[in-house]
Amino acid sequence: MPKPLVILGSTGSIGRQALEVVRALPDELRVVGLVANRDVDTLCQQIAEFQPHAVAMMDADAAQELRNRNEAAGYNVYAGIEGAETVATLPQARCVLSALVGAAGLHPTLAAIQTGKDVALANKETLVAAGAIVMREVRARGVQLVPVDSEHSALFQCLQGEDRQTVKRLILTASGGPFVDWTKEQLEQATVQQALQHPNWRMGNKITVDSATLMNKGLEIIEAHWLFDVEVSRIEVLIHRQSVIHSLVEFADNSIKAQLGVPDMRLPIQYALLYPKRTAGNAPPCDLRQWRQLTFEEPDEERFPCLRLARQAAEIGGTMPAVMNAANEVAVQAFLDGRIKFTDIPRMIAQTMERMEIHPHPELSEVLEADRAARRLAAQMMS
Amino acid sequence: MPKPLVILGSTGSIGRQALEVVRALPDELRVVGLVANRDVDTLCQQIAEFQPHAVAMMDADAAQELRNRNEAAGYNVYAGIEGAETVATLPQARCVLSALVGAAGLHPTLAAIQTGKDVALANKETLVAAGAIVMREVRARGVQLVPVDSEHSALFQCLQGEDRQTVKRLILTASGGPFVDWTKEQLEQATVQQALQHPNWRMGNKITVDSATLMNKGLEIIEAHWLFDVEVSRIEVLIHRQSVIHSLVEFADNSIKAQLGVPDMRLPIQYALLYPKRTAGNAPPCDLRQWRQLTFEEPDEERFPCLRLARQAAEIGGTMPAVMNAANEVAVQAFLDGRIKFTDIPRMIAQTMERMEIHPHPELSEVLEADRAARRLAAQMMS
Repeated sequence: MPKPLVILGSTGSIGRQALEVVRALPDELRVVGLVANRDVDTLCQQIAEFQPHAVAMMDADAAQELRNRNEAAGYNVYAGIEGAETVATLPQARCVLSALVGAAGLHPTLAAIQTGKDVALANKETLVAAGAIVMREVRARGVQLVPVDSEHSALFQCLQGEDRQTVKRLILTASGGPFVDWTKEQLEQATVQQALQHPNWRMGNKITVDSATLMNKGLEIIEAHWLFDVEVSRIEVLIHRQSVIHSLVEFADNSIKAQLGVPDMRLPIQYALLYPKRTAGNAPPCDLRQWRQLTFEEPDEERFPCLRLARQAAEIGGTMPAVMNAANEVAVQAFLDGRIKFTDIPRMIAQTMERMEIHPHPELSEVLEADRAARRLAAQMMS
Repeated sequence: MPKPLVILGSTGSIGRQALEVVRALPDELRVVGLVANRDVDTLCQQIAEFQPHAVAMMDADAAQELRNRNEAAGYNVYAGIEGAETVATLPQARCVLSALVGAAGLHPTLAAIQTGKDVALANKETLVAAGAIVMREVRARGVQLVPVDSEHSALFQCLQGEDRQTVKRLILTASGGPFVDWTKEQLEQATVQQALQHPNWRMGNKITVDSATLMNKGLEIIEAHWLFDVEVSRIEVLIHRQSVIHSLVEFADNSIKAQLGVPDMRLPIQYALLYPKRTAGNAPPCDLRQWRQLTFEEPDEERFPCLRLARQAAEIGGTMPAVMNAANEVAVQAFLDGRIKFTDIPRMIAQTMERMEIHPHPELSEVLEADRAARRLAAQMMS
């Protein structure tokens, strides 16, 4: 019987690729719930094709618009975070793909875990902002949390059948993004269009800018720390421009395991949705003879200070990663809107981190309050 | 309590490196038996240091010489294949490292399996000549057979926690050996000294010549076929000059897993001896930033016909792999003795394979008879 699946963020880049996986594997996966932010047209097409049991939209106006569409006839269209939680906790769902962008994904993902659903996690912010809380719930409920990020999927795959006590280092690979060879002076002039030209991956805008600043890798360090229970000091970043080796694990005996594949998100999405099962899907094969050579370099934290900021936030802990993440979301949006320069992104984050008071052992409400306060502060600083 | 270990071939390259591992990990491993071919001096040193319960020498004269040495006082020195079997089946042994060179390793390795010992297998010929028989015994006795070859250790490590039914391809990496860039004409002139200059690995002479002809990779295809129950047509070879990626497994979903490390046999030896445990040993760490780039190329079966001969032998099956292996041993020895040219090695093997009758479903006695007959034929053809 196909595994019943809810997709949070079905009209985004990960959501749409997840539906390609479902389409290719109808015997393995069946969509029972779809949640989108505000793209009514795309969600209507998805409803028509996949016939879920329930749908929700984060945006209330969009939800209202959807209620008037033919495709939504007969559906009780849920709205907002509560609506997303209703769909994420559908009794018939067994697995929830958490792929909403930003901190909005936190509540419905936690709700899914608390009702015993396995979670395929694409939303980094869930673990960055509230890793301690989320992992506590995952352990308490005994659910599976399988990462969708290609890097964490690689680490997760390399750790299969291994004793996690023997992990010496996690090595996250980074393409380096579009600006890997740019000087500090050139980075000051980087445009939005240039930042959105990712060399290897097709992804949403927010994460593509995060790749250009290397904040994406910083967030991944924090995510890996929570997912695999490894200290931040034992998580390294290696620039690997080809994005073929997705990440590596070094063990106590100095053996290293790596996971490789073409840069195609459908592979880690499928792995997370079907875990522990592997089957032929729609990710293309990887021919190493075609690549001919794979390269490795040290990242430059001078030119890409977001990496250092993320390590600092992780080491301070408490609400600091949530603050950093919130400031980054505000700064990236401001950059995308043309209101700040590319190099202002780390400056704004650093200033927000300096000015916020940190709660060392927050509960969820305190994490969310820190997130809101950091957003307010970052927005104020810009105006 | 340290795991009680017998080493078959303790004075050879693998045996000596295994003893380095034992020396570094006295809480993990304890030597209870040592078997050597004919190097009395080295075995005496090993007896003095490791104080095994029992020792044997394959060569009867060497055994006689050992009996007169002070270090062997109080030992009942066993001799020949029967002596090796006695030590390999010591009641107090739990694991046997099979590292004798050539077909001589077959009997004592089988004896160890039949008495329920776990086997760390460095002797390729055991599986090449008698894979069907050995694997039948491994399954019947429920023992662990863990490969020591760096390539098969890599595959074995990558398969941990994975369903073997989902393996799509095994990809064995090859350094290419010292002659990877030589033309056919240059190969005709290759000297013994040149063939023994392996770029990456320190190994015995026989296997170093096998690396230069790529027969080593051919033997590894057959070994991998038996170890992992994968058809020969799904086992590929990739030239990877740096010998950092030791091999790769491609799964049904097109995900690839690889194992990496510095080219140092102590790592796979330790892994095989301690399996499933990993702990800090004496293999150095691998810093990918130092390597900077890893390269991949297709092997050239025109210049290195041994690769094709091995595939043919594996596909014909029965006694053919044993015949090919025997002809290769004779030819390599003749090359090392200066009696034939480097490029005569594949010619002699091909001629032996053409002239021998093949038994399709041999028992052990028929495998050994094929081995002897092929050696006689190969030797005749030379004179």
